[in-house]
Amino acid sequence: MNKVQPSILPGFMELLPNDQHVLDTMRNIIEKHFKKYAFLHIDTPIIERSDVLLAKGGGETSKQVYHIDHESKNMSLRFDLTVPLARYVAEHYHDIEFPFRRYQIGKVYRGERNQKGRYKEFYQCDIDIIGNDVLDIRNDAEIPAIIYDIFRELNFTNISFHINNRKLLNGLFEALEINQGEEVLRILDKIKKVRKDVFVEMLKEADCNDQQINQLMDFILFKGSNQEVLQMLNRMDLQSELFREGLFELTEVYEYMGLFNIPDANICLDLSITRGLDYYTGTVYETFLNDYESIGSICSGGRYENLALNYTNNKLPGVGISIGLTRLFYQLSAANLINYDVTPAIDVLVIPMLGYEKYGASVVTKFREANITAQLHVEEQKIKKKFNYADKLNIPYVAILGEEEYNKSSISLKNLETGHQEILSVEDAISCLKEIKQGK
Amino acid sequence: MNKVQPSILPGFMELLPNDQHVLDTMRNIIEKHFKKYAFLHIDTPIIERSDVLLAKGGGETSKQVYHIDHESKNMSLRFDLTVPLARYVAEHYHDIEFPFRRYQIGKVYRGERNQKGRYKEFYQCDIDIIGNDVLDIRNDAEIPAIIYDIFRELNFTNISFHINNRKLLNGLFEALEINQGEEVLRILDKIKKVRKDVFVEMLKEADCNDQQINQLMDFILFKGSNQEVLQMLNRMDLQSELFREGLFELTEVYEYMGLFNIPDANICLDLSITRGLDYYTGTVYETFLNDYESIGSICSGGRYENLALNYTNNKLPGVGISIGLTRLFYQLSAANLINYDVTPAIDVLVIPMLGYEKYGASVVTKFREANITAQLHVEEQKIKKKFNYADKLNIPYVAILGEEEYNKSSISLKNLETGHQEILSVEDAISCLKEIKQGK
Repeated sequence: MNKVQPSILPGFMELLPNDQHVLDTMRNIIEKHFKKYAFLHIDTPIIERSDVLLAKGGGETSKQVYHIDHESKNMSLRFDLTVPLARYVAEHYHDIEFPFRRYQIGKVYRGERNQKGRYKEFYQCDIDIIGNDVLDIRNDAEIPAIIYDIFRELNFTNISFHINNRKLLNGLFEALEINQGEEVLRILDKIKKVRKDVFVEMLKEADCNDQQINQLMDFILFKGSNQEVLQMLNRMDLQSELFREGLFELTEVYEYMGLFNIPDANICLDLSITRGLDYYTGTVYETFLNDYESIGSICSGGRYENLALNYTNNKLPGVGISIGLTRLFYQLSAANLINYDVTPAIDVLVIPMLGYEKYGASVVTKFREANITAQLHVEEQKIKKKFNYADKLNIPYVAILGEEEYNKSSISLKNLETGHQEILSVEDAISCLKEIKQGK
Repeated sequence: MNKVQPSILPGFMELLPNDQHVLDTMRNIIEKHFKKYAFLHIDTPIIERSDVLLAKGGGETSKQVYHIDHESKNMSLRFDLTVPLARYVAEHYHDIEFPFRRYQIGKVYRGERNQKGRYKEFYQCDIDIIGNDVLDIRNDAEIPAIIYDIFRELNFTNISFHINNRKLLNGLFEALEINQGEEVLRILDKIKKVRKDVFVEMLKEADCNDQQINQLMDFILFKGSNQEVLQMLNRMDLQSELFREGLFELTEVYEYMGLFNIPDANICLDLSITRGLDYYTGTVYETFLNDYESIGSICSGGRYENLALNYTNNKLPGVGISIGLTRLFYQLSAANLINYDVTPAIDVLVIPMLGYEKYGASVVTKFREANITAQLHVEEQKIKKKFNYADKLNIPYVAILGEEEYNKSSISLKNLETGHQEILSVEDAISCLKEIKQGK
């Protein structure tokens, strides 16, 4: 019979079970904290109506959308979780309680060209808080608090939240009478990426004069402690309502980030952060691992005025952030930075000697009743091979059952790391394994 | 601005957060037991190469496959989790340890016509144990034990596992000199669905004579206790090696199901169970909720000789079962049979009075540090509206913080179900909420 070559498509991530378990642990940590902060789970379809997904139109992303080859010609795979959220909130507007705090962790699809570390199918982990018409600014301070908790559990404590507020810049544009605000914002986003002379040239092309350029650069490059940044902004005393609003909001967000227990050392009020996407209107975040800045921002987000304006006239302001799980896992793995606690997927492998399989079945059942993750290995194989199997699967303990153990209603429990082995009653073995499990 | 109608495609399931939480609880129960029985998680791409997915060719399913409209013309959405498993095991054969116990919970896609309760996107929850060349028969007894644990936690104890072994029927065909075995098997699968005279006519058309038909019907319709079924089979003493193998296997599986703690009352050795799919070769299972037989088999599966024969020459026998989560949830909801314990998604809503928002932020942070799921509600709204919000979201407790509470470093904790309210120190409130959470 002709065989089909078994392989996945290029640009898709697929892991072996041990690596999958490490990724799952990261995912579980993320989800645990999303829940702890009272975000509700939703699970939207991966296939949506093309006209819904592409309502905004244009952009690089729309070229990367996978369409389904189907008579209706109106089915596509989602390319992010934000557009489906907008559609969800607009569609279920009357059945949703606001503020609506939702999380979603799911696969999204982009037909990007093949590149190392870029995937066509990847997980996004999104949280957003959506208000009905209004949403209190203090919500903006909670978002980085969640991210802080997550990365602390992932063993990254040296993390920086770079926070800014778009209203400050837009207010500054007002005060400096800069007209091409959107274009200038896009240029300012490149401050860390291009040479200074190129940068200045770009601003000139966007109709900025020398004085404007100097004031813009002094502003976004201001360095100082968080208190000094706020003092500087207060001293500016610009004649712009928008600027004053931005300053009030940034001050509130900064203060509440502290109340939500983010240490000041992890907060960086950074006037150079703008975020390229044009739908952010207030607070913007980027997040960096200080020891590994080359990885870039590990999650970004911000405040937007109107989530679902393509679908509804209801004004739905929100604030949110997204973690690109697949890419983050790839980057941390590649840089050898996976350093969080991964509990074993399987606690114990039960190996009965020939003729003691039934005893093995009853022991493994008792383990499972005690919520110990246990596998019975009754295949006809040499015991050495079974130990090797436990080793390969990172199973820390084996329980060996033979005549002696059966006669004593006991098991021989062997710690594969230390080599230590002892005969224990089944009950004592359960207590021992539970203690180890909980101690982890 | 023109608005796009916000809606999902017909035939897709999407839930509001409260219902989603009920579904998630079911999913978590399933996953918990899969893990407890030492199945390892894998997560294959939803998009696979079309030639891989359709290697087997033909069949109703292949017409329902969604293809991606892409230049490569070789990308499709998976329609089950079995084909991707076969591809995975063949592809990673040298990196997998056997027996390979894997679980996967994921969305699969079938372009079925629109029908109530049938979805084009649905979750399957699969477990399989794959051997390299051989796989011990006692694995077949573990599979229903897992399903039993799951449905017990879902509060269905009156569940029946109908078990048979294909080798018995195939052996009987040998002994009765029935040639069109596959065709006859397909007909026998219809025993419960068609009238007796129609059934007999179908068998005649498959070249069975009256004597063969009588013996077949006596066999598959045999009624008796499990012991009586085994005794009857032993008495038959057929001249067929295959039959003897089937009898040995069925006896082993039955005995070990008991050792894995499935009560005999929940096991039904049922010689009429054949399962339509032609790739089962030994043990076959169907599972029924006895009080709701109209729902049909809630999960089915069995033993197969060769998982990945389309991709590799390695012989990979396996045994597995699949739960169709989306459909099961739909059926149980529609029949009002959701009866398992659903813990609240959010434990407590923290409502600070005007001017006490900062105290609110510090209280909610303490709750979260104690792993209590807590939400801070600082929107400018009447308190009645906030209580109503808690009610709609099924949040059982609210913590109210005003001047008195602030001065005493305490909170007023109100149970929304009983109406009971008391002032507690933050620490006591934490203890109280943790106790309630753990007691659930």
